[in-house]
Amino acid sequence: MKRAMNFSAGPAALPFSVLEEVQAELLDFKGTGKSLLESSHRSPEYDGVHQETQSLFKELIGLGDDYHVAFFGGGASSQFAIAPMNLLQGGVADYIVTGSWAKKAAKEAKRYGDVNIAFDAEDGKYTRIPAWDECTFSKEAAYLHITTNNTIAGTQYHRFPEVKAPLVADMSSDFLWAPFDPAPFGLIYAGAQKNIGPAGVTVVIIRQDLLERCKGDVPSMFDYKLQVEKESLYNTPPAFPIYFTGKVLKWIKAHGGLEGMKKRNDQKAALLYGMIDKHSGFFRAPVDKESRSMMNVVFRLPSEELEKRFIAEGKEQGMLHLKGHRSVGGIRASIYNAAELSWLENLTAFMEEFARKNG
Amino acid sequence: MKRAMNFSAGPAALPFSVLEEVQAELLDFKGTGKSLLESSHRSPEYDGVHQETQSLFKELIGLGDDYHVAFFGGGASSQFAIAPMNLLQGGVADYIVTGSWAKKAAKEAKRYGDVNIAFDAEDGKYTRIPAWDECTFSKEAAYLHITTNNTIAGTQYHRFPEVKAPLVADMSSDFLWAPFDPAPFGLIYAGAQKNIGPAGVTVVIIRQDLLERCKGDVPSMFDYKLQVEKESLYNTPPAFPIYFTGKVLKWIKAHGGLEGMKKRNDQKAALLYGMIDKHSGFFRAPVDKESRSMMNVVFRLPSEELEKRFIAEGKEQGMLHLKGHRSVGGIRASIYNAAELSWLENLTAFMEEFARKNG
Repeated sequence: MKRAMNFSAGPAALPFSVLEEVQAELLDFKGTGKSLLESSHRSPEYDGVHQETQSLFKELIGLGDDYHVAFFGGGASSQFAIAPMNLLQGGVADYIVTGSWAKKAAKEAKRYGDVNIAFDAEDGKYTRIPAWDECTFSKEAAYLHITTNNTIAGTQYHRFPEVKAPLVADMSSDFLWAPFDPAPFGLIYAGAQKNIGPAGVTVVIIRQDLLERCKGDVPSMFDYKLQVEKESLYNTPPAFPIYFTGKVLKWIKAHGGLEGMKKRNDQKAALLYGMIDKHSGFFRAPVDKESRSMMNVVFRLPSEELEKRFIAEGKEQGMLHLKGHRSVGGIRASIYNAAELSWLENLTAFMEEFARKNG
Repeated sequence: MKRAMNFSAGPAALPFSVLEEVQAELLDFKGTGKSLLESSHRSPEYDGVHQETQSLFKELIGLGDDYHVAFFGGGASSQFAIAPMNLLQGGVADYIVTGSWAKKAAKEAKRYGDVNIAFDAEDGKYTRIPAWDECTFSKEAAYLHITTNNTIAGTQYHRFPEVKAPLVADMSSDFLWAPFDPAPFGLIYAGAQKNIGPAGVTVVIIRQDLLERCKGDVPSMFDYKLQVEKESLYNTPPAFPIYFTGKVLKWIKAHGGLEGMKKRNDQKAALLYGMIDKHSGFFRAPVDKESRSMMNVVFRLPSEELEKRFIAEGKEQGMLHLKGHRSVGGIRASIYNAAELSWLENLTAFMEEFARKNG
């Protein structure tokens, strides 16, 4: 088997050593005579996995006891509704719209209260994160919602808005890419399938003061208070995705934690953006430099014809999923935590050769 | 590795050959150079899995084109709210309460309209499925909700109510245990982790006429219409649980389909109930004979002391999770599709010996 260089935007590449570990214990989890997939969520063997995964999130981010970690099914898109269902119900929330996911989040919130679009790109082209003085914040917002990384546009927040309202953040596509100060965040949610695990589990981190403000009058399964109280074991949780994610967290820890991830990701992004800028007459980066995503690197070639060839030739060389999102076209290389530096060395060498031949 | 005889109520035993298949292709899915866990939900390789799994549900049950198959995260407990959110919104729905899961389903529905409890056990002991003339059905119910198998009480519907309203059924714990006529069912939902796969995906089957009656004014992720229209690819689905479930469906098909499952399950249940009845002075089955579950066999021993020893000695002999649900105590052996006949031979031999020694 030859391992592909997988630049998928998500579900994305996972650490190979974690896949190997999971494979090794798939038939018999720690001598229990059964797979973890066959283990009751009330069994001590699963409970150990569940608790350890929760703890690792707290440890890696450096969360204090005022933060709770919960696991949900249904993806971050479900949290677009569940977050305002708990936190809004009347009142107003601010949303900064930096792409189509942020727009969807704002749309779902409208069922539960007033939504103030603090910023949206006028031209519909999401090529940058706005400056705060371009945003119109409400005086008494229940929260400010941001999408910290935008997979389609290829933009990322490199600092966070300083506002009175707690931040509610969809971190699906850059969660744990680097250390961050959790203090401004009242709620963080992230689908696992980009940076921290396989599809099927969404991590929700909520601060005690926001938890206390939750209305409670919502369906049990979407009730943050209840889920935190029941430690995400109110019903059967998505056990395998949680287990796998726990192993990725251990892999992150073994690779220097979030500092280690940042170093790794900085190196990879520097290689790729370096190559784009080196041949800026051939490769065109549509995103403002200060808003560039460290996770999803988007760029264009001189023609769509060349882009097609680039994607096809890349694929022949084992570099998969270089095609940009269908809504914007172009090239996109997603280089989440698990993407290897060697893949970027390959990709940039290929880019240089491609530019030389076709420039 | 010695494989345990796993009588867990869920997540439950899975077909070993399926675990082996999944293990074999975990690192490299069909020569793509990546795991299915790393494959975009928009990739042809995942799409094949997704479509095939949907088709297998239709084929195995024998569903016509008027039925749609969708995949959700969040477990059947989420459907307790999502089903009435779509189908009720005002009006009245009937609920037959045959256990604690049915009760929870009724509770969540109350947010969306009137809930008529057509039947509930007066003594709170759920030892049987009621006769229909014991139930008080509404004249104009939007639907009648039933829980076809009750894991805690160990009861199961062996025929379905003949009412005007469409049936909405939580089939989590006996889905695909045997052939059934889908015609009375407008909506079926089932968490996979008992009879058909691992935790993390809930299958929703909805008939066209009920789909048309869905109100639509619900969060996108909980909108049956939208999810059916988008073929459960509105956002990233729980890909691995779907993939694994698809393989279990193929295993069911290879073992004679639902007819094959019924034969297999009948044999197993006959062994176990046979042993209980043979030593009815020692083993006591609290459930009415005609309501006995073919999936979760519950029984008591003469004392709690003996029950503890039974569970402990069973465990020593490799028979796991024989303890009854914490809310009712006693013994419970869950013998879903994947439980092997040989496990039942072992269990019943152990029971006979235990009764002989302690009777």
